[in-house]
Amino acid sequence: MTEGHLKSMPEWRQLTEHARRMALPENYLKHLVKQKNRLENFLIREGGLFYDFTRQRIDEQVLKGLVNLAKARKIRQRFNQMMTGEQVNTTENRAALHTATRNFSDNPVMSNNMDVMPDMRRIRDEIRNFSAAIHSGKIKCANGSLFKDVVIIGIGGSYLGTEFAATALWNLADKGIKLHFLSNVDIDNFGAIVGCIVPETTLWVVVSKSYTTAETLANTRQVLQFLDQKGLDAKDHIVTVTSKGSPGDDPSNPVLKSFHMFDFIGGRYSVTSAVGGVPLSLYLGYDRFENFLKGAEVMDIHANTAPEEENLPLIAALISVWNNNFLGYPAQGLIPYSSALSRLAAHIQQLSMESNGKSVSRHGEVVDLPCGSIIFGEPGTNAQHSFFQLAHQGRPFPIEFIGVVNPYHKEYPGKSKGVTNHQELWANLIAQPQALAEGKDDSNPAKCFSGNRPSSTLLINDLSPENIGRLLAFYEAKTVFEAFIWDINPFDQYGVELGKTMAGAIRNEIAEKNKNPDYQFDNRDPVRKFYLDVLFNKKI
Amino acid sequence: MTEGHLKSMPEWRQLTEHARRMALPENYLKHLVKQKNRLENFLIREGGLFYDFTRQRIDEQVLKGLVNLAKARKIRQRFNQMMTGEQVNTTENRAALHTATRNFSDNPVMSNNMDVMPDMRRIRDEIRNFSAAIHSGKIKCANGSLFKDVVIIGIGGSYLGTEFAATALWNLADKGIKLHFLSNVDIDNFGAIVGCIVPETTLWVVVSKSYTTAETLANTRQVLQFLDQKGLDAKDHIVTVTSKGSPGDDPSNPVLKSFHMFDFIGGRYSVTSAVGGVPLSLYLGYDRFENFLKGAEVMDIHANTAPEEENLPLIAALISVWNNNFLGYPAQGLIPYSSALSRLAAHIQQLSMESNGKSVSRHGEVVDLPCGSIIFGEPGTNAQHSFFQLAHQGRPFPIEFIGVVNPYHKEYPGKSKGVTNHQELWANLIAQPQALAEGKDDSNPAKCFSGNRPSSTLLINDLSPENIGRLLAFYEAKTVFEAFIWDINPFDQYGVELGKTMAGAIRNEIAEKNKNPDYQFDNRDPVRKFYLDVLFNKKI
Repeated sequence: MTEGHLKSMPEWRQLTEHARRMALPENYLKHLVKQKNRLENFLIREGGLFYDFTRQRIDEQVLKGLVNLAKARKIRQRFNQMMTGEQVNTTENRAALHTATRNFSDNPVMSNNMDVMPDMRRIRDEIRNFSAAIHSGKIKCANGSLFKDVVIIGIGGSYLGTEFAATALWNLADKGIKLHFLSNVDIDNFGAIVGCIVPETTLWVVVSKSYTTAETLANTRQVLQFLDQKGLDAKDHIVTVTSKGSPGDDPSNPVLKSFHMFDFIGGRYSVTSAVGGVPLSLYLGYDRFENFLKGAEVMDIHANTAPEEENLPLIAALISVWNNNFLGYPAQGLIPYSSALSRLAAHIQQLSMESNGKSVSRHGEVVDLPCGSIIFGEPGTNAQHSFFQLAHQGRPFPIEFIGVVNPYHKEYPGKSKGVTNHQELWANLIAQPQALAEGKDDSNPAKCFSGNRPSSTLLINDLSPENIGRLLAFYEAKTVFEAFIWDINPFDQYGVELGKTMAGAIRNEIAEKNKNPDYQFDNRDPVRKFYLDVLFNKKI
Repeated sequence: MTEGHLKSMPEWRQLTEHARRMALPENYLKHLVKQKNRLENFLIREGGLFYDFTRQRIDEQVLKGLVNLAKARKIRQRFNQMMTGEQVNTTENRAALHTATRNFSDNPVMSNNMDVMPDMRRIRDEIRNFSAAIHSGKIKCANGSLFKDVVIIGIGGSYLGTEFAATALWNLADKGIKLHFLSNVDIDNFGAIVGCIVPETTLWVVVSKSYTTAETLANTRQVLQFLDQKGLDAKDHIVTVTSKGSPGDDPSNPVLKSFHMFDFIGGRYSVTSAVGGVPLSLYLGYDRFENFLKGAEVMDIHANTAPEEENLPLIAALISVWNNNFLGYPAQGLIPYSSALSRLAAHIQQLSMESNGKSVSRHGEVVDLPCGSIIFGEPGTNAQHSFFQLAHQGRPFPIEFIGVVNPYHKEYPGKSKGVTNHQELWANLIAQPQALAEGKDDSNPAKCFSGNRPSSTLLINDLSPENIGRLLAFYEAKTVFEAFIWDINPFDQYGVELGKTMAGAIRNEIAEKNKNPDYQFDNRDPVRKFYLDVLFNKKI
């Protein structure tokens, strides 16, 4: 495979031709949406999800061209290799088996000549038993009370996915437990949490695969000191989710319980492992967590088995690549019309941008086109009153709208202007894609809408754990399908290393100055020295 | 003024030449940062803020060229016209006098031959007196208790700025009042709030200039029904912030108190008016709100009086335009290294994208270059473990880092790896801009960092109300300076109208079906009909 391989494929070149054609005014969205059978041909309803791409800037030829690209790149085979334990994380010589965490079949999943499923089942059983024991009071606080607050200490992949799922499902949190997230190393994050929990009835869950993440270690250190001051013991109040044998799984530092993570599950794909499983089961009960897994499993099976033409995350990935590389959109909005999905964009931002923000193929060659998009979003209709001005009349960007057919709260039937709140929400969810696509002429240029702005709409039936699991697995599958088209590795993250190394060197200088107040900061880099002086002088 | 005027200016053309020069490898950031006196020449410390642009892809010639552009466009004069009440909102024939809300001078500010300052002072006095009466118990709940929960009902500009400031200052909230935001028309937003307040001791603050915003009306209707069910009365529990004489300021529908808004203050610029003033004074006390205003006033005076070369928001605006139009970056990250600033990006996203997401000049001509950027962000260090992979090794985008020299919590001196949490945070804040700018070579392409990725760093001394006010006013001034360079109107938002109109038509169809279950949705638009059927069938 040589540099530029993707661009030199006949399927890619043909799509480039199509992109030229789609740029012609007669192929603008306002015309495309009027095509016969547009809805039937640009809609997939599979795996409990519904995906409408009638308002994407594609026609049947483009769709066929994209599917041909997917076939030529063998991305379904790659997905199957992923699910069956091959070392698809090539730079780190590892499998990527997040799908095994929600595999409820009896079949083995072999990786490195080992069936990983016994471990997956054991961890699920441990989570079930532990959360049941906490809820029943079989495991109590040292003072004999039930636990009432659970604080997750973790950052990035050990935090965002759990936060998304917990926020989405918070209406179901009937176990008498509040969930808090201590992610940022900012001491104000710690201070805020300490200010609103009762130490004696708080369980701290430290999530770190390596147990070396600087932020998580610093926060855990604060928690240990805090427990000590309160006369409480880590073995009663701390749980770890970490790799077997890591410093967090060390019998000489006893904790209440350690759950294991595995090197074949990356942080941003780990929501369905113990990383999400322990907090979500404590918060919602294990049964709901299992339903969440089962929803994800349905989507995994769909992604793995459905033919390209009917494969929901695969088609969504192809449209992403089309928008990114052929139509030249650098960013994508993610707008859920549901308050409960308010942290979806933050999680998918991480999942997508950390997985696919790469410039090098898995064979080490520079990819000569931009991979990855900037993903951002806030819930609708809020976003309409915020940044949608730019979406409609400024720099265009594709949007993924997400609708929930049935809200959680159904006990408020009051109407305004003849419609319920939920109907008002949907009137907007229906209107926005249409307004973006079709636009409107006006004799006043300030009131013109050029239209031709693409979007998709994804629907789930309700905010059940199954549907949140489906939604999660949809985005995971979409992300890896995109990567497989670009032939990049969506499972490593070398791009975070340089900042870490540099922060380490700066930390060493700070630690030196802490020990020795006469220490002078290295002045070879005057900017760095300047900031370090500000930090120690405590003023600008 | 004719189309393409901006691009045909000699100052613009010269900057285009500079951009070509800056693209040469010898002008990459790793070299620029080593220039003699880089720090001294690319740093401004004014108005209580600190702005370091040493890591922007500019040299002294570019900076001079940008300043020349600002002078040629007379953007400081435009800013002064704005502050002195001229009708700078040309499409709506209005002034834009948000700066008057924090003007504590004795001078008049004339708009339409009227001094607006008496109204500004009166509103501040009303806010002071009202919040003091609530805190002291002079105004009590109907049951004789003090108010304990305040719910803001408002969306977009009636919500995001207040949420940002309240989140930033929440450590100072010592008045025994919790703040909640009912923004989304999603009934689950209402259900969530109703589930966590005590109706008898809750004050609802309805914020809507026109009192016609569909979402706010729908939520207010729910609240009125809810109060009614609880045997409570709007005149005891509802406050409005609205235009004089609007339906929210109607004596025939009595409320506890109405505060006035004015047509010369747009929603996204209204945090320092009664829109933010009422909730923030209830939450924090009026004195802290006044300090917040005074911080903003310092920045306004700086923006209005400092020469171009030393004008902090003006230089920041020029750099935005440089990155956007000359270097071609479509998006900008906003990364505050502070948990308390977690909602800064959402507010600035609205402020910037709604103000400058335009394609037409204030003279009605199409601007033939992209205005406005996509603004997005999460707090650091969290963002490092999320989307910074793409920032370092994927598609580059400029970043604005924001640091707080002194955190709020200073009572946790515990150290990890020899440094406090705050020092660890700063080690990262110092390292990231350097890593992005300088990059790193490696024989393994997956571990290469191409560098040359621009950023700025903005510092405030601490999370005081003054500094949060300064930060707010900095972004407001930066936003309008950008608009003045492009010659667009940052104060209108016609781009939100088409979606509203289409939603209105859909709402009418839904209301019709609510009245008449046999009503069949118009099938001329099969996609729209399809969604309406899903909504009524309650399943996909």
